[in-house]
Amino acid sequence: MSNTGKLRIIPIGGLGEVGKNMMAYEYENDILIVDAGMMFPDNDMLGIDYIIPDFEYLLDKAERVRGIIITHGHEDHIGAIPHLLGLVSAPVYATPLTRGLIEVKLARNGFAGKADLHTVQAGEMIQIGPFQVELFHVCHSIPDAVGLGINTPAGLIVHSGDYKFDQTPVDNWPTDFAKLAEFAKRGVAVLLADSTNAERPGWTPSERVIDPALDEVLENAPGRVIIATFASLIARMQQVANATMKHKRKMAFVGMSMVDNAKMARKLGYLDIPEGTVVSLDEAKNLPARQVVLMCTGSQGEPSSIVGRLSTGTNRQFEIQAGDTVVLSSHPIPGNEEIISKTINRLFQRGANVIYDAISPIHVSGHASSEEQKLLLNLVRPKHLIPIHGELRHLKHHAALARQVGIPEENIVVVENGQVVELSEGKLSLAERVPGGYVFVEGQSIGEIGKDVMREREQLSRSGILLITATLDKYSNRLLKEPEIITRGFVSSEDAETMIPVVRKKVTDIINSGLDSEKTITDAVKSLLYNESKRKPMVFVTVTKA
Amino acid sequence: MSNTGKLRIIPIGGLGEVGKNMMAYEYENDILIVDAGMMFPDNDMLGIDYIIPDFEYLLDKAERVRGIIITHGHEDHIGAIPHLLGLVSAPVYATPLTRGLIEVKLARNGFAGKADLHTVQAGEMIQIGPFQVELFHVCHSIPDAVGLGINTPAGLIVHSGDYKFDQTPVDNWPTDFAKLAEFAKRGVAVLLADSTNAERPGWTPSERVIDPALDEVLENAPGRVIIATFASLIARMQQVANATMKHKRKMAFVGMSMVDNAKMARKLGYLDIPEGTVVSLDEAKNLPARQVVLMCTGSQGEPSSIVGRLSTGTNRQFEIQAGDTVVLSSHPIPGNEEIISKTINRLFQRGANVIYDAISPIHVSGHASSEEQKLLLNLVRPKHLIPIHGELRHLKHHAALARQVGIPEENIVVVENGQVVELSEGKLSLAERVPGGYVFVEGQSIGEIGKDVMREREQLSRSGILLITATLDKYSNRLLKEPEIITRGFVSSEDAETMIPVVRKKVTDIINSGLDSEKTITDAVKSLLYNESKRKPMVFVTVTKA
Repeated sequence: MSNTGKLRIIPIGGLGEVGKNMMAYEYENDILIVDAGMMFPDNDMLGIDYIIPDFEYLLDKAERVRGIIITHGHEDHIGAIPHLLGLVSAPVYATPLTRGLIEVKLARNGFAGKADLHTVQAGEMIQIGPFQVELFHVCHSIPDAVGLGINTPAGLIVHSGDYKFDQTPVDNWPTDFAKLAEFAKRGVAVLLADSTNAERPGWTPSERVIDPALDEVLENAPGRVIIATFASLIARMQQVANATMKHKRKMAFVGMSMVDNAKMARKLGYLDIPEGTVVSLDEAKNLPARQVVLMCTGSQGEPSSIVGRLSTGTNRQFEIQAGDTVVLSSHPIPGNEEIISKTINRLFQRGANVIYDAISPIHVSGHASSEEQKLLLNLVRPKHLIPIHGELRHLKHHAALARQVGIPEENIVVVENGQVVELSEGKLSLAERVPGGYVFVEGQSIGEIGKDVMREREQLSRSGILLITATLDKYSNRLLKEPEIITRGFVSSEDAETMIPVVRKKVTDIINSGLDSEKTITDAVKSLLYNESKRKPMVFVTVTKA
Repeated sequence: MSNTGKLRIIPIGGLGEVGKNMMAYEYENDILIVDAGMMFPDNDMLGIDYIIPDFEYLLDKAERVRGIIITHGHEDHIGAIPHLLGLVSAPVYATPLTRGLIEVKLARNGFAGKADLHTVQAGEMIQIGPFQVELFHVCHSIPDAVGLGINTPAGLIVHSGDYKFDQTPVDNWPTDFAKLAEFAKRGVAVLLADSTNAERPGWTPSERVIDPALDEVLENAPGRVIIATFASLIARMQQVANATMKHKRKMAFVGMSMVDNAKMARKLGYLDIPEGTVVSLDEAKNLPARQVVLMCTGSQGEPSSIVGRLSTGTNRQFEIQAGDTVVLSSHPIPGNEEIISKTINRLFQRGANVIYDAISPIHVSGHASSEEQKLLLNLVRPKHLIPIHGELRHLKHHAALARQVGIPEENIVVVENGQVVELSEGKLSLAERVPGGYVFVEGQSIGEIGKDVMREREQLSRSGILLITATLDKYSNRLLKEPEIITRGFVSSEDAETMIPVVRKKVTDIINSGLDSEKTITDAVKSLLYNESKRKPMVFVTVTKA
């Protein structure tokens, strides 16, 4: 096979940061998009609801997008689809469960029936423009995940998606080793592979290790068992259902996303639970506590989730009661450790026993650890590696692992979002940079909230505000009335009572001395406040002459 | 020995949360205080500099405090001493290095020479009011740490302080097993023991495991090695110095706290570095990169630390250069994971290689893991256990370990700060609750920033502010001029240009229709902004009639 032309690999998301994965492959006039994910905001992204990739590169190329392939149904791979479909009207290809999860998502965003969705199966080959794509099954923490072999005129690309090599997956369908070996035989120009767990030594345990841990919890729990996990963790639902049946309990799914996803997964046959085992929350509340399993969201301590509300005593449908056992079946997403820890402490305070991944194997990662990453490299034997899906530290470490298995340093390309990489005549090289940041979504604003606004919010949050309104006679420049002063987030209301008169006197003195510019007053008040409190609230002064 | 009277154990800090440890022991009219630490704010404590224990219980009892014993020189045990000494003028007892670190701290807070400091040694016995205190050596990540055997008329208390059972500590001085066994022989009424690592299985590795890891870094680093750790980690300084000498490099301490502490520790003989090995930063900058080791703060990614500034390119004295190796020699303090991860990514972006605890054993914990906690229980054989030093989750888990080694459930008391526990006639029981929260320190304010202020800051940070000032003619109630509108942290400046005229028109219309109350205008503007943007900035309206 002679490799001709130039393939451009455009990382729109998923390189150098986690959680909003999106890659574009461009050959001449045709573009294939793989995944369109979202991520939740970091702690310093004040007020932001969530983050999506920056689509700017595609703005004038929407017509050239021939298809969108989604590797699996997690939020960090499907979350930005509604936004992307606002720009691009290309067909979306996904396996049945992934498609089901996309449909649930689209329905909630007013896109029901409007997207051109196509069901594909692992093992199938689809032609999308010049790209002949072979989908192969991979294990991950959700069923029906696929990786992609992308045959392009410039060479064969293997895109792993999120994967692990689970020898005993819950659905008994291991990662497709034969296909990977076949790719190797045909010659792989570039492997793009999941770097998430590059820092973890050894092998990621099989999902099966959760079974005995769940078994022990349900065996010993003196009352209700409340299991929190992600709403898309369909495999976990099956495991909980199996344990529920074994211990002669009944389970209820709680919360809209849990209920919707479970319903869809049962309908499509990905979740096998006999009719009598699932009950409604109301039915569960009437059963003896020792017969109840509730499955809900909130394993990351999100304040608005069910477990988040249970921990603060603000859940409406039910509350924590003595004897409850709460299982947080997930690993903290980086940045969430503190809120999860607070949630655990609060649940203990309310009398629950809490089981979490630090003390029991009630969760395992869905991503390959370093030995698996090396195995993938040895199976696929790619000429080049581009580490994907991870922060820069993970990409760098993945690169180090690749050097250990013999990929020459010059054949490993560690780049961040927006750095275009070109494959031409069997060689990888760096091309131009395109926009590769992230876009904040907040309420109905998409992308309008930038770093300036974020900086102002940080200032506001650090020491609060003080507002001064002074009205002067326009002829005499004398105060017509006392200056009005409002403060928020600066001092307690008792302290404000003593502080405001001091500020008012200062402002009055300045104006009476004939200095009435807003800047002069602002500077004087700032310095007064700093001297008194060693703090720097934002000060706003409005002087009106009437 | 007959146990008489009633000992009151008052947890002022260190139970149910980490980082600001402080315990009071009260017998009749006499109080002994152990430790007075601070902690850094959580991510949701906006604007706060640091946090100290709530001393309110001691406010009317300052005269009754007979002494303050400090177990070791870390911030979470000494940080609140300057605040405590503002209230209590009792003598402070500490081992030489701990005293040295307290002196450095007091000097920086204007207390130099004003405190009544007493040097004590492990192995000594001191009489403080009715308390006969035996100090015994424990291993921790700082030399000269002690635990306490407190003989009281009500029984013998053992207070572990922070400890681990390091068999090969850097200073060759293991934890005093003989003393612990002797306490057991005499009969221990209550053990108060460090719970920090209760969730970690097995044994905490010896500090010595760091030596080969450091060795490898210094052997392979092609240029400068920049090692970040806590300024109080004196043992780590010694290990870095040893590796520096072995690899024929020179080391410089960088940053005030590092320099001060290293100087003090060398003077007192806790740090043994030959003269020629330590150079100034300026000298280091003139040496070939391959001969340089810099030791500085910033292993937690603190933005104002040296490594924090290096990662953002804002350090004045020197910058990251290609070939630098940065070693973060600490474990993330809970809540700091996200900022540490960003710091690592930024250092990689600037061309450094970064070594951190996930990929190399360049740090070990200073706290006992669960097998060590069980060993302590078996050595001391206390009648009762009060788990200390940890979040509620850690205290609960420590209690579970104690049950495993045979302490009956009813003899284990898990409480949080402020819950007084009484020992009387050999039995523990719960007494009243006293204030046990924390006190925010911000600039010169201590404790004045409460939850209300924090909530206002959170509101301000979530969607920003919009300020409206309208001046009306007091006779006609007509606008004298256009309303002034200022916004911060809400929308970008471009969007503000289109939004402000809309708001101004709305305000003008309302006033012209004769509705000029501030509340009417505020509500109308809020609802306008919410309809337009689905967001809720804080809106402040000032209407002045002139």
